[in-house]
Amino acid sequence: MCGIIAVADSRNAVPLTATGLFALQHRGQEAAGIVASDGSRLRVLTGLGLVDEAFPEGSLKALTGSYAVGHTRYATSGDGDLRNAQPLVFEHVHGPLAIAHNGNLTNARTIRKKLETRGAIFRTSSDSEVIIHLTARHPGPIEDAVIAALRQVEGAYSCLFLTPTKLIAVRDPLGFRPLVMGRIGKARVFASETTALELLGARFERELEPGEMVIVEGGRLRSLKPFPAHGRSAFCVFEKVYFARPDSVFGGRTVQTDRQALGAELAREMSEIAADIVVPVPDSGVPHAMGFSRASGLPLEVGLVRNHYIGRTFIQPGQAARDMAVRLKLAPVASVLKKKRIVLIDDSIVRGTTSRRIIGLLRRAGAREIHMAIASPPIVAPCFYGIDTPSRAELIAATRSREAIRRFLGADSLTYLSIDGLLRATGGTAKDTCTACFTARYPTPIVDFEEPGLIGSEAGGPAADQKARDARDQARDADEEDIYI
Amino acid sequence: MCGIIAVADSRNAVPLTATGLFALQHRGQEAAGIVASDGSRLRVLTGLGLVDEAFPEGSLKALTGSYAVGHTRYATSGDGDLRNAQPLVFEHVHGPLAIAHNGNLTNARTIRKKLETRGAIFRTSSDSEVIIHLTARHPGPIEDAVIAALRQVEGAYSCLFLTPTKLIAVRDPLGFRPLVMGRIGKARVFASETTALELLGARFERELEPGEMVIVEGGRLRSLKPFPAHGRSAFCVFEKVYFARPDSVFGGRTVQTDRQALGAELAREMSEIAADIVVPVPDSGVPHAMGFSRASGLPLEVGLVRNHYIGRTFIQPGQAARDMAVRLKLAPVASVLKKKRIVLIDDSIVRGTTSRRIIGLLRRAGAREIHMAIASPPIVAPCFYGIDTPSRAELIAATRSREAIRRFLGADSLTYLSIDGLLRATGGTAKDTCTACFTARYPTPIVDFEEPGLIGSEAGGPAADQKARDARDQARDADEEDIYI
Amino acid sequence: MCGIIAVADSRNAVPLTATGLFALQHRGQEAAGIVASDGSRLRVLTGLGLVDEAFPEGSLKALTGSYAVGHTRYATSGDGDLRNAQPLVFEHVHGPLAIAHNGNLTNARTIRKKLETRGAIFRTSSDSEVIIHLTARHPGPIEDAVIAALRQVEGAYSCLFLTPTKLIAVRDPLGFRPLVMGRIGKARVFASETTALELLGARFERELEPGEMVIVEGGRLRSLKPFPAHGRSAFCVFEKVYFARPDSVFGGRTVQTDRQALGAELAREMSEIAADIVVPVPDSGVPHAMGFSRASGLPLEVGLVRNHYIGRTFIQPGQAARDMAVRLKLAPVASVLKKKRIVLIDDSIVRGTTSRRIIGLLRRAGAREIHMAIASPPIVAPCFYGIDTPSRAELIAATRSREAIRRFLGADSLTYLSIDGLLRATGGTAKDTCTACFTARYPTPIVDFEEPGLIGSEAGGPAADQKARDARDQARDADEEDIYI
Amino acid sequence: MCGIIAVADSRNAVPLTATGLFALQHRGQEAAGIVASDGSRLRVLTGLGLVDEAFPEGSLKALTGSYAVGHTRYATSGDGDLRNAQPLVFEHVHGPLAIAHNGNLTNARTIRKKLETRGAIFRTSSDSEVIIHLTARHPGPIEDAVIAALRQVEGAYSCLFLTPTKLIAVRDPLGFRPLVMGRIGKARVFASETTALELLGARFERELEPGEMVIVEGGRLRSLKPFPAHGRSAFCVFEKVYFARPDSVFGGRTVQTDRQALGAELAREMSEIAADIVVPVPDSGVPHAMGFSRASGLPLEVGLVRNHYIGRTFIQPGQAARDMAVRLKLAPVASVLKKKRIVLIDDSIVRGTTSRRIIGLLRRAGAREIHMAIASPPIVAPCFYGIDTPSRAELIAATRSREAIRRFLGADSLTYLSIDGLLRATGGTAKDTCTACFTARYPTPIVDFEEPGLIGSEAGGPAADQKARDARDQARDADEEDIYI
Repeated sequence: MCGIIAVADSRNAVPLTATGLFALQHRGQEAAGIVASDGSRLRVLTGLGLVDEAFPEGSLKALTGSYAVGHTRYATSGDGDLRNAQPLVFEHVHGPLAIAHNGNLTNARTIRKKLETRGAIFRTSSDSEVIIHLTARHPGPIEDAVIAALRQVEGAYSCLFLTPTKLIAVRDPLGFRPLVMGRIGKARVFASETTALELLGARFERELEPGEMVIVEGGRLRSLKPFPAHGRSAFCVFEKVYFARPDSVFGGRTVQTDRQALGAELAREMSEIAADIVVPVPDSGVPHAMGFSRASGLPLEVGLVRNHYIGRTFIQPGQAARDMAVRLKLAPVASVLKKKRIVLIDDSIVRGTTSRRIIGLLRRAGAREIHMAIASPPIVAPCFYGIDTPSRAELIAATRSREAIRRFLGADSLTYLSIDGLLRATGGTAKDTCTACFTARYPTPIVDFEEPGLIGSEAGGPAADQKARDARDQARDADEEDIYI
Repeated sequence: MCGIIAVADSRNAVPLTATGLFALQHRGQEAAGIVASDGSRLRVLTGLGLVDEAFPEGSLKALTGSYAVGHTRYATSGDGDLRNAQPLVFEHVHGPLAIAHNGNLTNARTIRKKLETRGAIFRTSSDSEVIIHLTARHPGPIEDAVIAALRQVEGAYSCLFLTPTKLIAVRDPLGFRPLVMGRIGKARVFASETTALELLGARFERELEPGEMVIVEGGRLRSLKPFPAHGRSAFCVFEKVYFARPDSVFGGRTVQTDRQALGAELAREMSEIAADIVVPVPDSGVPHAMGFSRASGLPLEVGLVRNHYIGRTFIQPGQAARDMAVRLKLAPVASVLKKKRIVLIDDSIVRGTTSRRIIGLLRRAGAREIHMAIASPPIVAPCFYGIDTPSRAELIAATRSREAIRRFLGADSLTYLSIDGLLRATGGTAKDTCTACFTARYPTPIVDFEEPGLIGSEAGGPAADQKARDARDQARDADEEDIYI
Repeated sequence: MCGIIAVADSRNAVPLTATGLFALQHRGQEAAGIVASDGSRLRVLTGLGLVDEAFPEGSLKALTGSYAVGHTRYATSGDGDLRNAQPLVFEHVHGPLAIAHNGNLTNARTIRKKLETRGAIFRTSSDSEVIIHLTARHPGPIEDAVIAALRQVEGAYSCLFLTPTKLIAVRDPLGFRPLVMGRIGKARVFASETTALELLGARFERELEPGEMVIVEGGRLRSLKPFPAHGRSAFCVFEKVYFARPDSVFGGRTVQTDRQALGAELAREMSEIAADIVVPVPDSGVPHAMGFSRASGLPLEVGLVRNHYIGRTFIQPGQAARDMAVRLKLAPVASVLKKKRIVLIDDSIVRGTTSRRIIGLLRRAGAREIHMAIASPPIVAPCFYGIDTPSRAELIAATRSREAIRRFLGADSLTYLSIDGLLRATGGTAKDTCTACFTARYPTPIVDFEEPGLIGSEAGGPAADQKARDARDQARDADEEDIYI
Repeated sequence: MCGIIAVADSRNAVPLTATGLFALQHRGQEAAGIVASDGSRLRVLTGLGLVDEAFPEGSLKALTGSYAVGHTRYATSGDGDLRNAQPLVFEHVHGPLAIAHNGNLTNARTIRKKLETRGAIFRTSSDSEVIIHLTARHPGPIEDAVIAALRQVEGAYSCLFLTPTKLIAVRDPLGFRPLVMGRIGKARVFASETTALELLGARFERELEPGEMVIVEGGRLRSLKPFPAHGRSAFCVFEKVYFARPDSVFGGRTVQTDRQALGAELAREMSEIAADIVVPVPDSGVPHAMGFSRASGLPLEVGLVRNHYIGRTFIQPGQAARDMAVRLKLAPVASVLKKKRIVLIDDSIVRGTTSRRIIGLLRRAGAREIHMAIASPPIVAPCFYGIDTPSRAELIAATRSREAIRRFLGADSLTYLSIDGLLRATGGTAKDTCTACFTARYPTPIVDFEEPGLIGSEAGGPAADQKARDARDQARDADEEDIYI
């Protein structure tokens, strides 16, 4: 996952961009980067780690200009090197071009192979480099080249492009990932979440619409809708369940309020449970637990204390070490837990291993009963749109029954929220929400990947899937003819 | 402030000590250090920053042995250099001796001057070096030298001393700072808080008593009570209000539970306030706000979201920069706050500047009324026992009336908890608690400092103060005769 | 300038390559890098600074495999960032490909522009990336692609290419830059200079011939001559005058011996000078001065002592600071210099500013007469083949008369070696030596650059130049037809 | 060994001191430090490594004031940590006091033990801390305290003391280590060698005399001779043979000229050797070889090339690794050496292991005969005055016969210079020179050390030794009475 931000038409473009990255730090902590334009040249600085670590004191002085684009990166590929840190900057026929990309493409590998057979050379393993290559093979002004390039890719992309004189912001036609715009005086700000606008004291204007492209140049702003309409959108519900910051606002709804609503829905769906207290897994499960407590009337208690100082240095491989890692992060409060029947709330379960360790901690601290309550449905399928979920084999709910999961966790009961509850609490519908991780119904074809279980799930999907397959077939046809390679 | 820990009689003394420091990280983030004994030599490693930063990967391999003492340091003097980082290690007539000290002495400067006139040379500005000097001037076994030294100092000290073959743990006669002991199998563990025992999976045995000295040597443990009795004790109530970790247990009471009780007391004392919601200042005010919410029936809402990624690099001097610093740390949630009458809860107010900025954030986010509610009394006097409160002049409650503070904060009302409420909620009495920061009644003479307001307050103190003055006079007499200088 | 090395078919390929880089450190101190193949993947590590700094302790463990290629880089472009550090690694239709390149191309910019119009994107500003692009646009096996690519470029290149299973070493048809091969047991070693073989204890086998390509694969070695013959070669005489290490052997001749011969030739050409002692500018002028002393009978004296510890930190901009920089590096020995008539020997003069400062030092130390003697001809033209000479405008001998230079230096006389003397001392002829910096006669067309003075000089060149122009014209024709772009 | 420098009464005291350290870098490369006074406070900065590494860019801005003292440290104790880095700064009854010390005391351990029994605590293992302790135990003005302290110590010390308002420079009564003074305008400069004055453009005034103390205060300079006269002096001849920089001047003689004279003496003493060429071990043997070549008429050749880029990272333990380490540093020039009868010149032999490896290199490069010629006598005894020679057991000449050494080295012959030749070439006499490493006759008692072989040698010494023993006995008597402890 990644966070992106741009500031245009401001003398303070670079420091504003850097500051704004702190409000997007939760979207990526592996690397950070900023590219700036002084009107004729692009200069880029990238570094590993948190924003603070990536930009040592004084380093940002090397960047000047009134346009800047920033990126925080969550290494989905796992190789923690600088090569893939964004913004990526290349030179080509259109001159220098930088890209900061949030989301994942689902046909990048396929295009990359084709590009390679036609002479392209690649420096990174990032799907974003594919987009740059495609722009390089189209004549005409850079915005046309970007449009032509994006028409060939599928999947999730909220992108910021920077040339020496133009800033281009785009959101993919299904609008998987968020992208908002705002103003500080005359300056324009684009960012993944409203939190960055808030931090900078920028006025929120609106979200980019799915499929919208906004071009800022010479103090002016143009908006285009260059992509064919899909008849639906697919905003990632997992942003609301877990990923986004609680104070972010999407579609006029505050994320934290949606999370409390998820907890409240869950309380309604498990009204028969007899318990003494509600305990959240901090920090992610806190708003859900607040909603659950209010809807159920059960008191909310802090049964686990989170330690923010975690010894990365001391985390060693091995089972005992992983147990210690959980203890470093979460400390049980025995006086709260002892002899209690507990509803333990978390937002979701991925592999189940952490939940299992937490339940172990609670048992050893004297809990009498532990009812695990998850404020979202089981995750049954990997995300190909940017969330760093593991492969199907590692997703506990993709391969095991509810009862098997409960036994694995060591809980007295296990309840997941229903899909209907999920959509009701977050104000979404099947027509405007991507729930692929919970349903295996992917809104786009997944050209690059061939996981049998997936195809099956996809095949059983709703009409939208047929459309997606049609679109894919058409894309393939187009591919043969006029792909700019 | 500081955190201290020791592990004795374990092959893993060094890694256990290092790991335990993470559970004491909140007590000091400026520097960390570990000293280890292999039976004949002491080896020490200190570094600036968090434990993770102070000990780069692999660095701890340089330390070996079955005894280790660790320290996390909160720079009270403000000079962020390594010279004062503890444990301090010196060589003297007793051989090598290391000290890790939590607390502050109130007559160290006076003794230091006297030592200097008799030929002592000082390397650090730390009061802990004074203790080492005093031990060096006494013959006999090291434990006698430590006793003789500590009999000459006044103030707060929970100390861990290490020689190549002995570990000595001491708590001052008034017991200002905590110190607990426990076991992992045969190994002994001493630590500032029970959280470190929990983290290491150690069994809690008991707190050291005020004035107790415990010596671990050759696998055996001896306990002494070498100091004259004071007839009272003086555990720091601010540890409970703010400083200690919420899951720590002091005197059988969990800190978090005491904090909820402080909030509940406060709710009772301000029952006439008409409000819609209770909003905590995160993270410090959360348990107090939970207690307030329950006792008052007002709903608890998350109106401020804390960002854990803070850009130290980007914090610049100046008013605008400090406003930005608060925004980087705390983001208001407009949908929660808008048009609401808010009880804003925090544990305490020191200078008032941060509270003022937070109230400004809430106002701009649309709050209708803001009732500032502080779950402890006004801080009217500096701490000389280790808490890093500023001088009297900077303490807003030491120089301004309640109404003047309210105006400064920009709140619609301002309520502090009463002293009685404070003691009731935390289970303390005037006989066993230090409330000097709230009352200016210091349990010991403050030899080193001459702040007129203080002397006045002290002079007006209760009988305990007379005892303290008597003790001081006796100490001074002793000084003339047999001080080992 | 750069140094390159490869080791093939050795379990110790990576440590041998790293060690060998120390023997090539004089060829580039700005950055260093190593790429290794484990048979299926290439892994690369690059870092800024000297080899020691570029590869922090333990870092090379990340590289494994029995093939490795290393590079030391002398930043000719001046931008000290890692982006241009070699080996460069790209992925393309042939899979992963790495390049380490010594030398400069003279038509790279022109090709780059053309590639960009056909969709190529560039990550670096290095001419070496152009070669990779050209290989990517040719089908067939990688060695054919490399040949096809190199047929399109002009200028100087000694290159090492690495794929997961093949090592390819090439020297350009004119053989500007050195490249030698040797063996350690079964392992093959390629390196810029014999010094690297010596250091590794490798047996020297032979130099690669100009235009030769050697392929190591599966334990076997093939040699090709895939380029059209030029009828001449053009080994850089400046390698012998200054650049190479004194213990390197080129064409069976030890560099140091050639340098002594240059000094001896110079002594013969200035036999009329009356002087007391010969003083070298250390370290570069020492062998030349030894030769001069022997041939002239004048005693060699150490009048300048070199300090190897130079305070980069303290070198500030400004005239006074540059004077200090010279004094930091060179200290005059007053007792040697006082009242003496001195022949001051250096290998060459570029801008003249350092020589002027040294002469100032000698004057202030009491020298009576200073006769500057340069063991090579005046540098009148920039090098486009890899030596980091400045532009024509900064070359003092390109724009000023002999007498004007003497006055600028403040010398009593100034003598340069003749071209004939240069060739005689180094055993070269106009048919096998590049003397372009001394004669402005470039052995290849300089497509990328249009410096009027240069074209003129070139036009006045010998028949070889006509051939070069013919070759260029042919290349351009070919360009139109079958360039693989 | 160490280098020391001070600048007084200059606005640029700190940058001048830092720059001057580069001219003393050869005297110590393990750590560097600077202390400065702004008139009321001392501020100190120390760092590991070369001056460049110890003071990262910008770091010196933290130091201000018109007095500064600098130090480069050669770790004689081997523990490369910062604790012992000088200048050491302590606070005591006289206020803050800094010391920078070159040389070693011979009764420091004995005094330290005594101090410890009287209550002193030690932070470092340095003998310099003993001096500070002694000053702290004497009343009166600081210069009297320093005199009283130094009267109690024996051995070698050139010292610079700094208080907030005074600079004190002292040289021990025997003048083992150098110390010179000079001026830049009104500013005063003190330094270990004249090279530092040269570099700063300071005018050389004179050497401090043995036993002289110079005090700079309030723009004025006082000179005292506070120590009892010894009737002799003992300047270290090894400074001339090897340690000092070649361009340094001691007693009006340039070191490099003395070294050439040593070579010339050696040539005379081995006139019967038949050889073809003279080859120096670079860089230390070069001036000696030049003198030898001139006196003998044998041609000087560069048979070994020194590589200044040495891979500390890659030096591993083990025999093969040490051979590689020598090859990294020195490369043989086969074309020079092949079939030649060689006189190989070095300044001295300590353990003999490096010489042995070099002779091996020459043999493998084809040398016919190798005649090892050492331009100083055999080193038979350790230095207790600051030169980092190893213990007697490791000194090859202390335990083996000349013939055994020759066999160990693998040379065809081995010649050392005679003591008479040594003194003749360097212009010294037994009355003004310390030759203890060559003769085992120590000019002072060696109280701290009891090495049987030493006592024997010393006992067999000349009348000077009896004087030394008398002085020691007197010192011991004094010790009982009025030592200020």
